[in-house]
Amino acid sequence: MSIEAAPAAVPIGEPQIREAVERLKPWARVTPVMTSRTLDERAGSSVFLKCENLQRVGAFKFRGAMNALLQLDDASKAAGVVTHSSGNHAQALALAGKLLAIPVTVVMPRTAPEIKKAATAGYGASIRLCEPTLAAREAAVADEIARKGLTLVHPFDDWNVIAGQATAAWELLDQAGPLDAVIVPVGGGGLIAGTALAVKARSPQTLVIGVEPERADDARRSLASGRIEPSGDPRTIADGLRTSLGARPFAVVSRRVDRIETASEAGILDALRFLWERLKIVVEPSSAVVVAPILERRLDLQGRRIGAVLSGGNVDVGPFFQTLAAQWL
Amino acid sequence: MSIEAAPAAVPIGEPQIREAVERLKPWARVTPVMTSRTLDERAGSSVFLKCENLQRVGAFKFRGAMNALLQLDDASKAAGVVTHSSGNHAQALALAGKLLAIPVTVVMPRTAPEIKKAATAGYGASIRLCEPTLAAREAAVADEIARKGLTLVHPFDDWNVIAGQATAAWELLDQAGPLDAVIVPVGGGGLIAGTALAVKARSPQTLVIGVEPERADDARRSLASGRIEPSGDPRTIADGLRTSLGARPFAVVSRRVDRIETASEAGILDALRFLWERLKIVVEPSSAVVVAPILERRLDLQGRRIGAVLSGGNVDVGPFFQTLAAQWL
Repeated sequence: MSIEAAPAAVPIGEPQIREAVERLKPWARVTPVMTSRTLDERAGSSVFLKCENLQRVGAFKFRGAMNALLQLDDASKAAGVVTHSSGNHAQALALAGKLLAIPVTVVMPRTAPEIKKAATAGYGASIRLCEPTLAAREAAVADEIARKGLTLVHPFDDWNVIAGQATAAWELLDQAGPLDAVIVPVGGGGLIAGTALAVKARSPQTLVIGVEPERADDARRSLASGRIEPSGDPRTIADGLRTSLGARPFAVVSRRVDRIETASEAGILDALRFLWERLKIVVEPSSAVVVAPILERRLDLQGRRIGAVLSGGNVDVGPFFQTLAAQWL
Repeated sequence: MSIEAAPAAVPIGEPQIREAVERLKPWARVTPVMTSRTLDERAGSSVFLKCENLQRVGAFKFRGAMNALLQLDDASKAAGVVTHSSGNHAQALALAGKLLAIPVTVVMPRTAPEIKKAATAGYGASIRLCEPTLAAREAAVADEIARKGLTLVHPFDDWNVIAGQATAAWELLDQAGPLDAVIVPVGGGGLIAGTALAVKARSPQTLVIGVEPERADDARRSLASGRIEPSGDPRTIADGLRTSLGARPFAVVSRRVDRIETASEAGILDALRFLWERLKIVVEPSSAVVVAPILERRLDLQGRRIGAVLSGGNVDVGPFFQTLAAQWL
């Protein structure tokens, strides 16, 4: 990757991340870092898991959403914000808006699972349903902006969101001490962009490695070709990572990320089960993606100190509990 | 309850617990104490969860097993130990024996789930199968003791085991500060006996409350009648709490425990789901039993500081992952 191939300048760095850390202090949880003898033995490395599944709304997304809302001017706060997401960003923005008394509208495809609509509405957001196409979604967002003067808070293609996501790795460095590598999942790229900016500012020799599902390897292909290679609608259990890289994240990823690895669906499921069964933490498949290559020792980091961000813990356990209820009630 | 009604003297107290704390330091994990704004809001109290699901082998049982093995004399260590359990104590004793190079034999009914046999054998214990009756189990244990000179390490009716279990609440008091009540699940009674000894030694005004399934309410009935009232083979999802109180635990419970509450199967499932879904931690149903009356605000402790011991995290997630694998692989 040459620097010239990057599609945009990067207007944020250490000062903006430090500001975000301070700005988020009253709002976001400093999530714990977990270690496990069992994991270290399996990995052949010392692994430090940054538990963003324990962040508010159960995902790192709260950091970026809150950091963006806190920087709006008063008129924009009064008018409110809009986003399109049926995932963790929707819930994160809804809670951030509720805490700050900023109206939030979320555009969702009418096919989104009821559980996600309910969770977002439960935090007080207005939901606008649209047809399940990119065109319909963009039209609905544009309409909300034009008619109501709402501000778009994009799930990942937004510098204030990226600066907020950066605070997770910033904390991890404080908590775990020096690290040889930091591993994060790659979806739209907000987390990996923030992570790369935070880590390379403080510890340039620390590797920043992204992991994505084999079936959604757009970041790997984009790094190779030097331009954003979109993924279609990849079929992967890691539902948070089906998105293609955004332009702003790509500008950072192409400059600051050392490499992108992939995980098979079987590897993701193995890692998910390991985290649930042995580490006793509920994480979502998108988090297990980063642990898969660590367990499989595919990162060439034996004997090293690895930080990994577990991005979230929102997974539908409904069917599991329905089975238990049928059996016991 | 009058003191006279208790069936045995209690030969352990603060000195033995302090010794156990020191003895276990190189071996057991000081598990974290978790707090949650969401839980506090639901409970109307400040709740401190002692996460023994993160203890080695995924349960507090490691404390008692290890404390017992560390106090054997050299001849007994060389001969080895035996226990009867198909649950967490079996795995705890197996790991403790492995770490100390003490041979461990576990007597299990031949009907025990393969997953439990495999887990115990995986820690290096020998498994002796017997018919699934109390008589067959006791005969098998007696035979192992007579023929091989093994020492019985009972899952709960053993003072060294009880002193080991006491260290969980001891740590909780160090970690959480002053507490108005400590809530623990009640099965055979090793955990509640140890907890009561630890808490009342350090903080006599702190309430010690046990919770058991409505369907396995032998401790409640035993406290009421003043003698051990066995439960049959109660049908409850809280598989760790089907056992009746042991004589030694009862001697402590009858003197030091303030009250016993019960939880319905529906309440246990609701609490289990809450802990998985909102707190993002994998706990077993026996742990959810203590959280059920907290969520239901049935303990009359609003506005107070409550400690609760989450006893373990060993639950069969196999069916859940089989469903995911069928869907995604």
